[in-house]
Order: sequence, then structure tokens, then C-alpha cells
Amino acid sequence: MQRPDHGGDIYRNHIQVDFSVSLNPLGMPASAVSAAKEGAAASAVYPDSECAKLRRLLSVKEEVPPEWIVFGSGAAELIYALALAFRPRKALLMAPGFSEYERALLAAGCHPDHYTCSRERGYAAGEDFPDLVSPETDMIFICNPNNPTGVPVRWSVLEQTAAVCRENDTMLIIDECFLELCTDPAVQSMKGFLRDHGRLVVLRAFTKQYAMAGLRLGYLLSGNQQIRSRVRSCLQPWNVSIPAQMAGAAALGEEGYMEKALSCIAEGKEYLLKELEALGLSCIHGAANFIFFEGPGGLYEKCLRRGILIRDCSNFRGLREGSYRVCVRMPDDNRKLIQVLADCLREEHNG
Amino acid sequence: MQRPDHGGDIYRNHIQVDFSVSLNPLGMPASAVSAAKEGAAASAVYPDSECAKLRRLLSVKEEVPPEWIVFGSGAAELIYALALAFRPRKALLMAPGFSEYERALLAAGCHPDHYTCSRERGYAAGEDFPDLVSPETDMIFICNPNNPTGVPVRWSVLEQTAAVCRENDTMLIIDECFLELCTDPAVQSMKGFLRDHGRLVVLRAFTKQYAMAGLRLGYLLSGNQQIRSRVRSCLQPWNVSIPAQMAGAAALGEEGYMEKALSCIAEGKEYLLKELEALGLSCIHGAANFIFFEGPGGLYEKCLRRGILIRDCSNFRGLREGSYRVCVRMPDDNRKLIQVLADCLREEHNG
Repeated sequence: MQRPDHGGDIYRNHIQVDFSVSLNPLGMPASAVSAAKEGAAASAVYPDSECAKLRRLLSVKEEVPPEWIVFGSGAAELIYALALAFRPRKALLMAPGFSEYERALLAAGCHPDHYTCSRERGYAAGEDFPDLVSPETDMIFICNPNNPTGVPVRWSVLEQTAAVCRENDTMLIIDECFLELCTDPAVQSMKGFLRDHGRLVVLRAFTKQYAMAGLRLGYLLSGNQQIRSRVRSCLQPWNVSIPAQMAGAAALGEEGYMEKALSCIAEGKEYLLKELEALGLSCIHGAANFIFFEGPGGLYEKCLRRGILIRDCSNFRGLREGSYRVCVRMPDDNRKLIQVLADCLREEHNG
Repeated sequence: MQRPDHGGDIYRNHIQVDFSVSLNPLGMPASAVSAAKEGAAASAVYPDSECAKLRRLLSVKEEVPPEWIVFGSGAAELIYALALAFRPRKALLMAPGFSEYERALLAAGCHPDHYTCSRERGYAAGEDFPDLVSPETDMIFICNPNNPTGVPVRWSVLEQTAAVCRENDTMLIIDECFLELCTDPAVQSMKGFLRDHGRLVVLRAFTKQYAMAGLRLGYLLSGNQQIRSRVRSCLQPWNVSIPAQMAGAAALGEEGYMEKALSCIAEGKEYLLKELEALGLSCIHGAANFIFFEGPGGLYEKCLRRGILIRDCSNFRGLREGSYRVCVRMPDDNRKLIQVLADCLREEHNG
């Protein structure tokens, strides 16, 4: 069976519940839905190429100057723009990791090196990670917490990596797409380093935080005007649609939404970890709004036959057959997942 | 005064009517608005990365195999993807022309050559255009009809250019974004050449045809699998939002919409040409849904003070101060434009 490159393919599968994508379990805020609909109805004009209103609001929320923000049609667009704008010769990624970094680098003609976050070390990056950075290293992508394992990168590793990247003039891109959905307050943003680190880029997305994956809205933060303008030069002027700009602005006006989401995620995660382990599945206790676990092969197909989409992670570099990722959803869905997995595992034992 | 790079900046100006962008005067079809709103409300999931439904419908309409289509978040995204994917060393553009070709080529490290469509020849490309194509020419962009003049490229020039591009293995990109809004039936698509010309790419957009610029939806057609897959490799998997996919699919179901639009454009254009010339402005009688004219400098600012946005074209390569483009809108708006221009010109004469 052909494994999908990404989760979320609800278009070629018959799905009741999708656990394969890791979005805010509350869904899109009602204010953002209204704004997106209003934006859709008002889309017979070009979008604001400067995203002025959204930029103003986001700059307040992120506590960065408005000009530090480059918006993308999802953070994914910016991953490609970074790779294509700078065309690194030598790049470094963590394995396992989000496959789009590698795909974007390959499109830019770069075959990246991989640091293995090994199973033996619980898929965490070790203190030896920064040792791999050399003066030849042009670009590094780090996802914190990492995807698909949910394992955060230790602060000491981030700090030391930032230090050697600065020494070596290496562009360090920290993808914090899952950070706002982290239940572990120890997982911190690197954005405080932006002012003093000219080659640091922080990636963020509305996609996951406000569950608006269908609208496409992400951004990068950089204190370096040259980096921003080179990335911008590889993007069309109207890369963020009107519905995305308006929904994003509305979402930023929400109060208490993320607190509520985080409490759902914390509760749901505790429940899922307990139940998955009770089913004999080996779980990583990560920091993100999703859970990585290992078990028998074939669970993806078995779940799919029952209308449940989970992420088969066996095609991630460094992972083996029987590796899976599920996101934390609302309680009823989470219970459904456990029931279905229990059913699949029974079939496994009986079959 | 800083002239804008593009029309349509209704965000930093106080505008009653915008004549600076060249969209379908009927606006977005009601079915597309509904679908976009429905899509906005259903955007808490990822878009279909294959745009399967839209692809199926469009392939029928365009009479090409579904796999020949690569969708973009507007045709502009595809202009960048083409330039960044192929990184031509030598490229050829027409001047004046749409500035995004040059901007995308520059982002890819290529300083394009320009063929001047001179004022003396009514801004038309001459039969000598194909002579500029050499074995070193990697990429050519031609917009037909051309923007901002509306002048169509003669069929003999297109045919001969296609022939020498085939001989020289030159990628020929024909931007037909305005073709569906052309009032001159003699202006024909090059898509019939796709099957036999492995380096031909045809660009199209929903943006202008269905006035959905705020949603971002365009596409390219190519019979060459290698070209398509290389372009695709430079694009994120989810580059077309759900509202855009759904609005596009709905628009394709419209019957009679384009006929009605074309009849409005033809009538409006006749009216505007007559009145603009009566005002002493020198008009190009082009084929598109917009009119290029020359007159005194300063009309842009004078119109703007009266709440009317026109396109100042003096920053197009090869054009001079006093060059303007206005799109054809509905009768009331068109009359308003003429009144305002008459007023501006009176101020000119009296001031």
C-alpha cells in the first residue's frame, strides 16, 4: 500500500474522524469563520500585498516590530521561499522531521545532511547536535517541538546551536508551528534571540493554532532586513488571500481561546496516553498536541477501514514500520480513537 | 510621488471606484461567492493538495488531460515557480509588459533581455520578435493580449516564436490571463500547440476571468511531465486554499456568465474609447478588457483626489510619463470615469 506523504488526505479516503493532522481541537474560532466568510464575499479585489491590518495586530501580539513579519500562504510557502531564496549548498535537518524541509531543499538543489534523533534516546536531539554545524553549513531547520515525535528540543541545545550558527554565519530556522499548542510551559520560543541573532528565523502558523489549514496563513519573524527582503523577492506580491488575512486578524482578537484549547489538549493527551499505553502501545510523552506511538504494523490500514485516519509515520526518515502519530481531539473523538485502536489490536491478535 | 508597482491598492488610498485592476466587470459569480463562503467555513482541514474536483472540471472545460494542469495560488505564484524552478540564464520579455515576469526572473538570478514594442508601432510586437530567440535563450514570457497596452500578439508572431523556441529548446510561456476577457475573437489561445510543443506553457487565471483576485487561483497547462513536476517541486503541497478551490469549481459551472461579461466589456469599451478620444486622450484600440491611453502627466494623482484609481503606467519599462491604463467596468462606473477625467483635464487646462 502506498503511504501518504502527509496526513489529512480526507479527499481520497472515507473518513469519520481525522487524527492525522495536528490542529487546535476546538477548530477555527467562530469569529475567524465569520471573517473568512466575509472575506470570501469581498474577494473580487486583490488582497492587500502588505497585509497591513493583520501585520499591525500580529506585531502587537508577537511583540516584534511590524516590519519583522513576512507572511506566507501557510508556513509551508515560507519554507520553500527560504530554500529557494538562499539555495544553501549544505543544510542540516533532524531525522525524523517534517518532510517539507527536505523537499524544499531538494527543490533548491540541496541534499541536506541529517542528524538522527535516535529511538534509543527517546527521539530527542542530543547535546552533540550543535557539533555538526560547521562554517560550511548554510541552513538548519529545527522544529520545536519536533514533528512527528512531539519531543521538544532542549533549551541548552537550542542555545548552543544558535551560538554556533552565529559564529558560522549559518541561517537557523526554528519552526515553532506547534509551540502555541504545547502543554509543557518549559518549551519556549526562540524569538527573544531575534534581535541579537542576524541569521535566526522563527516560523509560525495560524494553520495549527487556530485550525485554519484550509485558508493558508503562516509567517516568519526575522530581525534581518536582508533576509526578509530576499524571501519576499521569491514570493508573489499577493500571496495571502483576503479570507486568510481577515480570518487571521479576527483570530488575533480572540480572548481565552488558546487557554481553553490548551486545557482540552492537556486533558485529552493525558487520557490518550493512559489508554494507548493500556493497549500496549509504546508512547512518547512529548510536549505537543499530538502523540507519537509505536506498535504493530498495519494499524493505519485497519483504522482506515473503520473510518479513522491516523498518520502512518513509517515513511519518515529514521522511523520504522509500526510508527504512528495521532492528534489530540475533543473527548468523544478521543474515546472513538481508543475504541477503534482496541478493535484493530484485537483483530491483530486474533488474525 | 511614489508610483505604485501595481494597480489595485485600495488599502492605502481612499477609493470610490478602482479602474486600476482589470477584472471581469460583472464581479465574482454569485455561485462562486457562495462556494467560497462555504469553503471558508469548512477550512479547519487541509486543502486537497491535488485539487481533484477542480482539476476534473477544468480539464473538461480546457479540453486537456487533467494531469496537464498545475494549479497556483493565482497565476502569479506560477510565474515565480517557473522562474525559480528553471533558473534561466537568458530570458526574453516584451517591453512594456507585466512587471512580475521580470521580478520573478530577478529573484531567480536572471536579468532578462527586453524586446521593445515601440510606441511608433502602436506597441505591437513585430515580425522580428522571433529573431531574438537564440539557442542561449532559456525562457520567454509573452502576455497575449499584452499588459498594459491590451495589444494582441499577432498569430504569425506567436507561431514563428513557437517554432524557433522548439528548435532552440527554449521554454515559451504564454500568459493568457486576459484572453477570456478579450472582445476580439481573432485573439486565440496557444493551447492547441501544447501537445506537439514540449517546452510550451500556457498560463491562465480565475483571478481576472471570474473577478476572484482576493481568493488567488490560477493554473498552467503543459503537456510536458518534466516541466510540470519541476514546477510542482517548488510549490508547497497545499498551495490552493479551500475557498479558492471551491469558488473555482463553482465558477466553472456557470453558464452564460462569460458571454454576458464579454457583451458588457464590448459595450463599455466602445463607450470609453469614444469618450476618452473625445477628451483628446490618445487611446490604443487593443483587444483586452482594459484601455491604454496617453495624455498629460499627473492624471493619476488628480483622479485619486477624486476617489478614482487608475493605473499610472509611467513606471513600465518603455513607457513614458502620461501613460495610463483603465479597465472597463459597468456603465455607471464608466460614465463616472469619463466625468472625473473630464474634470481633471479641465483643471489641467485652467491650472
